[in-house]
Amino acid sequence: MELEPGIMHKAAVLIEALPYIQRFNRKIVVVKYGGSAMVDENLKKQVIQDVVLLKLVGFKPIIVHGGGKEISRWVGKVGMEPHFVGGLRVTDEPTMEIAEMVLNKVNKSLVQLVNELGVKAVGISGKDGMMLRCKKKYSGGEDIGYVGEVTEVDPQIIYDLLEKDFLPIICPTGFDEEFKTYNINADDAACAVATAMKAEKLAFLTDVEGVYRDFNDKESLLSEMTVDEAQAFVDSGTLGGGMLPKLQNCIDAIRSGVSRVHILDGRIPHCLLLEIFTDKGIGTAIFNSAEEERYYHG
Amino acid sequence: MELEPGIMHKAAVLIEALPYIQRFNRKIVVVKYGGSAMVDENLKKQVIQDVVLLKLVGFKPIIVHGGGKEISRWVGKVGMEPHFVGGLRVTDEPTMEIAEMVLNKVNKSLVQLVNELGVKAVGISGKDGMMLRCKKKYSGGEDIGYVGEVTEVDPQIIYDLLEKDFLPIICPTGFDEEFKTYNINADDAACAVATAMKAEKLAFLTDVEGVYRDFNDKESLLSEMTVDEAQAFVDSGTLGGGMLPKLQNCIDAIRSGVSRVHILDGRIPHCLLLEIFTDKGIGTAIFNSAEEERYYHG
Amino acid sequence: MELEPGIMHKAAVLIEALPYIQRFNRKIVVVKYGGSAMVDENLKKQVIQDVVLLKLVGFKPIIVHGGGKEISRWVGKVGMEPHFVGGLRVTDEPTMEIAEMVLNKVNKSLVQLVNELGVKAVGISGKDGMMLRCKKKYSGGEDIGYVGEVTEVDPQIIYDLLEKDFLPIICPTGFDEEFKTYNINADDAACAVATAMKAEKLAFLTDVEGVYRDFNDKESLLSEMTVDEAQAFVDSGTLGGGMLPKLQNCIDAIRSGVSRVHILDGRIPHCLLLEIFTDKGIGTAIFNSAEEERYYHG
Amino acid sequence: MELEPGIMHKAAVLIEALPYIQRFNRKIVVVKYGGSAMVDENLKKQVIQDVVLLKLVGFKPIIVHGGGKEISRWVGKVGMEPHFVGGLRVTDEPTMEIAEMVLNKVNKSLVQLVNELGVKAVGISGKDGMMLRCKKKYSGGEDIGYVGEVTEVDPQIIYDLLEKDFLPIICPTGFDEEFKTYNINADDAACAVATAMKAEKLAFLTDVEGVYRDFNDKESLLSEMTVDEAQAFVDSGTLGGGMLPKLQNCIDAIRSGVSRVHILDGRIPHCLLLEIFTDKGIGTAIFNSAEEERYYHG
Amino acid sequence: MELEPGIMHKAAVLIEALPYIQRFNRKIVVVKYGGSAMVDENLKKQVIQDVVLLKLVGFKPIIVHGGGKEISRWVGKVGMEPHFVGGLRVTDEPTMEIAEMVLNKVNKSLVQLVNELGVKAVGISGKDGMMLRCKKKYSGGEDIGYVGEVTEVDPQIIYDLLEKDFLPIICPTGFDEEFKTYNINADDAACAVATAMKAEKLAFLTDVEGVYRDFNDKESLLSEMTVDEAQAFVDSGTLGGGMLPKLQNCIDAIRSGVSRVHILDGRIPHCLLLEIFTDKGIGTAIFNSAEEERYYHG
Amino acid sequence: MELEPGIMHKAAVLIEALPYIQRFNRKIVVVKYGGSAMVDENLKKQVIQDVVLLKLVGFKPIIVHGGGKEISRWVGKVGMEPHFVGGLRVTDEPTMEIAEMVLNKVNKSLVQLVNELGVKAVGISGKDGMMLRCKKKYSGGEDIGYVGEVTEVDPQIIYDLLEKDFLPIICPTGFDEEFKTYNINADDAACAVATAMKAEKLAFLTDVEGVYRDFNDKESLLSEMTVDEAQAFVDSGTLGGGMLPKLQNCIDAIRSGVSRVHILDGRIPHCLLLEIFTDKGIGTAIFNSAEEERYYHG
Repeated sequence: MELEPGIMHKAAVLIEALPYIQRFNRKIVVVKYGGSAMVDENLKKQVIQDVVLLKLVGFKPIIVHGGGKEISRWVGKVGMEPHFVGGLRVTDEPTMEIAEMVLNKVNKSLVQLVNELGVKAVGISGKDGMMLRCKKKYSGGEDIGYVGEVTEVDPQIIYDLLEKDFLPIICPTGFDEEFKTYNINADDAACAVATAMKAEKLAFLTDVEGVYRDFNDKESLLSEMTVDEAQAFVDSGTLGGGMLPKLQNCIDAIRSGVSRVHILDGRIPHCLLLEIFTDKGIGTAIFNSAEEERYYHG
Repeated sequence: MELEPGIMHKAAVLIEALPYIQRFNRKIVVVKYGGSAMVDENLKKQVIQDVVLLKLVGFKPIIVHGGGKEISRWVGKVGMEPHFVGGLRVTDEPTMEIAEMVLNKVNKSLVQLVNELGVKAVGISGKDGMMLRCKKKYSGGEDIGYVGEVTEVDPQIIYDLLEKDFLPIICPTGFDEEFKTYNINADDAACAVATAMKAEKLAFLTDVEGVYRDFNDKESLLSEMTVDEAQAFVDSGTLGGGMLPKLQNCIDAIRSGVSRVHILDGRIPHCLLLEIFTDKGIGTAIFNSAEEERYYHG
Repeated sequence: MELEPGIMHKAAVLIEALPYIQRFNRKIVVVKYGGSAMVDENLKKQVIQDVVLLKLVGFKPIIVHGGGKEISRWVGKVGMEPHFVGGLRVTDEPTMEIAEMVLNKVNKSLVQLVNELGVKAVGISGKDGMMLRCKKKYSGGEDIGYVGEVTEVDPQIIYDLLEKDFLPIICPTGFDEEFKTYNINADDAACAVATAMKAEKLAFLTDVEGVYRDFNDKESLLSEMTVDEAQAFVDSGTLGGGMLPKLQNCIDAIRSGVSRVHILDGRIPHCLLLEIFTDKGIGTAIFNSAEEERYYHG
Repeated sequence: MELEPGIMHKAAVLIEALPYIQRFNRKIVVVKYGGSAMVDENLKKQVIQDVVLLKLVGFKPIIVHGGGKEISRWVGKVGMEPHFVGGLRVTDEPTMEIAEMVLNKVNKSLVQLVNELGVKAVGISGKDGMMLRCKKKYSGGEDIGYVGEVTEVDPQIIYDLLEKDFLPIICPTGFDEEFKTYNINADDAACAVATAMKAEKLAFLTDVEGVYRDFNDKESLLSEMTVDEAQAFVDSGTLGGGMLPKLQNCIDAIRSGVSRVHILDGRIPHCLLLEIFTDKGIGTAIFNSAEEERYYHG
Repeated sequence: MELEPGIMHKAAVLIEALPYIQRFNRKIVVVKYGGSAMVDENLKKQVIQDVVLLKLVGFKPIIVHGGGKEISRWVGKVGMEPHFVGGLRVTDEPTMEIAEMVLNKVNKSLVQLVNELGVKAVGISGKDGMMLRCKKKYSGGEDIGYVGEVTEVDPQIIYDLLEKDFLPIICPTGFDEEFKTYNINADDAACAVATAMKAEKLAFLTDVEGVYRDFNDKESLLSEMTVDEAQAFVDSGTLGGGMLPKLQNCIDAIRSGVSRVHILDGRIPHCLLLEIFTDKGIGTAIFNSAEEERYYHG
Repeated sequence: MELEPGIMHKAAVLIEALPYIQRFNRKIVVVKYGGSAMVDENLKKQVIQDVVLLKLVGFKPIIVHGGGKEISRWVGKVGMEPHFVGGLRVTDEPTMEIAEMVLNKVNKSLVQLVNELGVKAVGISGKDGMMLRCKKKYSGGEDIGYVGEVTEVDPQIIYDLLEKDFLPIICPTGFDEEFKTYNINADDAACAVATAMKAEKLAFLTDVEGVYRDFNDKESLLSEMTVDEAQAFVDSGTLGGGMLPKLQNCIDAIRSGVSRVHILDGRIPHCLLLEIFTDKGIGTAIFNSAEEERYYHG
């Protein structure tokens, strides 16, 4: 009998995955899903495949998604003008209404994609099960409307869905003391959820390769940082643009009990799998301390 | 000590509720929520209060809601024209996209209202947990787009949410074999869910007082019918307009295991409570047979 | 359709009950049942209705009953003389035998009344499941026979009955180290049970309106007291008769973890419902401190 | 080291018990407790020891007790005359009241004796948990008052107590459709309970050695009978006195699913242990058929 | 950032495995492990890796192993002569003693190899938990000693180990009515276990490529057969040597509820993975009928 | 009816066992089984009967066995020479191979004997479920091969087997960091298991009567010692031969949470039963302190 060519290589790849599967067995992995990986149809399909594979080999993945570009598109469609202050969308009541509609539509389309691969997903917002309680977030002191900062997470509904073997997909809206609806930055929501669930891993799919020591030197990509190094970097003031709040989020998450945070390049196909199932990983990893890391790999 | 006036009457009302609470203890009650009761803010609040009370005294209520008027409003908002064939909305892809957004927005607003009364709700669509599988529904042979007919219900996610003590609120979208999204008539969805859950009671909140023997004679309201009487009525051809498919739905639900179906006037405040907690009830009740009914009240 | 007159008021009363039902969901409420409410057939029926309603709307009520007058009647019936020292019945062995018989008869008649309303009750004494261990209680140093002071509560059987959804009805007898049977004052037994179960509420049905600041001034009824105020009152020495040990009992119960204690006038029909389902309540409430109370109502 | 004399014999006796312990592991054994074994203090203690031992080695024993003599004594004590028709006590309302008091007193004294040996007992009547529903039993067509015939057993409370590892002790009172209290013959109650629980064994402690082929010939004791032989014997009309209804009871119990019924001489110390832990057994055993019995001993 | 070369291919292989992982999620796969794959150290390691991977991605694998060559080696070591009749080892008492020792040694060495990869294995024989009851197997009417034919499987211990997440490794010894120890052919034991567990798959690791239509024509390898084709083949009498009883075993297993049986070439590295994770598979598959198979792949 | 002679004595013996059965209900008892009791067929049968009886009356017995003499016999059989250093067998790789085979054979023969009495046993080694992790044990600094000292016990598999009602029988082999197999002294293994399981009792079956104050004076047998007395005795240096490490083992076990350790004379038939079911017990008992012991017997 002649074997299919390349078949032995397939077996080898599967066997190589063994220790990674083992390490994350029944561990919670929160994936912040956004950016290009949410726009390009091919990348989208690959992210979903990755997450479904993680589920099937015994991880407990949770998706938290954004929807920024799609919201802007619909705001335009009904003849309104998107308006931003300090990078945050000014969210008056009509905008909030559209944002909620769009985020839930995105949510259900992700549910559908996961279902299609044979794993049952359930899409929830931060209002379901009273999960994400928040308060108004000001942008440099300015009131920008229904933009929320998470003040409390009730993770019960997530635990229940995981227990019943569903894949939870979370859309970042929440509610305040008066049960008004708020839009929450998806990075913030992912951090809040990962922290409340004491996740083993929190992975951000971004549109950059990772964190650069010097943003202008593409050779200076950092493949890993301890949380202290990351804090020093943040404090140094050299970090620009969107990376600063994201990195601070990562630091906070680790200090609150998340084991590792990853900043991945969502433009690379199957970046999640590559990060998890290869020794070198990709992107930038932030973790508690060098010692622990060694122990963790032991 | 002087007692607050009327206080003894309060006690009496509570005590009167005793046998009704007992009869429905842990029983599933599906409420199809739509029509005026969903537009008028006062009625809306009262429906939610009723459902929350049912939950708190030990029933297992499930809400299935529609969103027709709101969908039309948003279709207009983006500059499209709503189009109907035989009473069913022609649902091309852009319309379906809007319908899904609007239905999920309505869904989350109901979740919020229930949460506000201290009971945790979870809003799901028929796509979540692969709950409502459907196929294209034709209107008199005509293809009207993404309008679905339920072919299979997987009630697992509803059972799981009930077990975990959440109040499920269901938005009537589903998916077909190719994982396309469909809009399902909310009456149909409520019937399908009630049947799959073997509900004790299925209550339709409508904009009519109930079923009239003679639609032109407001005195001819029928307070109850057996399923056979209802079928004869449907077959007689004298039944007009929107009531015909609704009544056929009721009949089918009873024949598939739902114990009682109620057509209620959603314009009456607290119509749900009144139906359940008074001997005479309100609206029209359809049940299996006169004999069983006597036993049921025994 | 014309609605039954007054029907809307019924709905309003039920809706008003909502927050109270919510507040006590799955909370333990111990009812010390005695006095006139146990003699008058109408009052008796109403107390049972109240307790059954509490059970059905999700509370976990437990009845602890006395039987003093009935014991005296039977002691007389067999030609013996009741004999009291310091308000406590001198309980020699023949008296104890009769007391146990009578208390168990009362117990089973209460079980029957609850059953009749469709809720399954189980009557147990402090000997069942070795629940109430006690030692001899002296009255001013005098040996008054088999009158017991509770030294230890094993609440397992109560937890088990509640878990299995039975309504426990407890008859106040116990046993000592030598497995002799003792009569326990029903107030003491109710306190011991409420304390061991960390009850949310302990309600005494008495034959007075509540605690008066000045017993001779019927206008001076206190509607609430903190535990410190109650202790000061007890220590002041102005409190007379049967109220003194009862109030001390209330104080001890709160200091051992019971959240609120109520002294109710059992002669008012449905006094339990009125206390729980109205904002003002009736009788006298004793609780831990004014602060906590505010929080509790928040 | 010199061993205590006789110690080896002790070990041998324990080892001999092995197969019997194995055979009845987790099996339900209902003991109808009455007659002399309930009057003589020594016999009483031994019956309780036997039952406690059965419990501790893994059986699930249930006691159903009578109280006939004690009831008569108390009827007399209050100046009433006991009155019998056809061997059944005429039970008017005052008699029923006394009977219930006495039966519950007996019940609690048995609870105490079991507790004293370190096993937790719970005493219940047929009214608790709505266990024994009954209707009036006529004696040769004559109304003899509150004497009940069991019409339905709800064994839930017994299952729950067994699950929670309590030893249930049942006092034979029940209730009818109008929730009136009835006295049930303890033999009847034991049969009803054994049948409802599909007991492995039902043992009657009586004041006779067993069933005699010829009552006048003490050598004619039958050590075992099939249910058909027993029925033939009953039908032959030669069986006298109290044995006839008891034997019919045994037959009915076996036909309804009880595996074996034993008529034991309660005057023999430890008769229960002797029946269970010796090959020959004592008294008369009734079982389904000779074939099954062989299988049963295989 | 430059990605490791070949890394994308790795991701692709993992994603390809997705549907196979899904199909066998929580399904029982029995692996009969023997032949060259048990002698060659490399092959051995690869088989264990394969089984561990199956376990980690959610299958429920069970290993049943043989030990023929090693038994012969030890029989020789103590100076005895192995003796065979009709391909079956004549197993007198001293041989049985050695066989049991060797099989258990092999068993524990496999346990160790699995443990080493981080999955907890538990090795048991057919005597543990009274799992494999058997009777003497005659070889053409001749008594060949302690060679057993399985008469009854008690799979409780296997279910318990799977429930507790252990990987069961079974050594093929059993016991008869007199509790004598028997050696069971490992193929027979694997079939008996797979049948009792209603396995989804039973895979034999052999030293042949599979079943040939014509043994002399290496091109005639059959990649699949229905159970009827397999039976016809067996009945045709053209099948030679060791394949005949193995194929009959396969047929019996399928007829008793195993879904698919595979005859694999254990000399191919990772043959288990290749069979399960590739569409074409390898070796020969036997299944119930062509129709079912199509359904199965649908 | 004439009772079998001696039958009353039987009942008395069973009743005497009552308090002992009660005291050890669901308690873990580890039996180190070795010495003569493992060689003599009668003693063997009696030990197994004892352990089975303990299991049936509600204890949770665990057997840990040795196999020294049988190992030597087989080492000889294959033409090798047993070799000892400081009382410990020098265990090179071929010896270890034989030791493992023999220990597992002994293990399965004990499983069989227990099964035969109707209780399901499961035999496991310290490699199964990765139970006994160890490191090399040196004898006076000398490397004696694969002799292991337990460094960590993972008792999960034992808990699981007990939960599923199996009787665990443990063979004293373990594994080191490199997954090499080690022979563990059975006394050490029993101590490690008893400690990890927080056993109520650890009983050593030995070939001596117990501990003598003066080994040459057979009258000086100690029937009990506190752990401090035992330590003082060990430290005194007067204790000879094999008893010293055994006594040190006992002391360590008690200091790590085992309640009582017994050194029994395995040559006395049913020594286990006699120790447990008689007040005086036999052999030497070591326990924590005199005070605790009194409490324990209270």
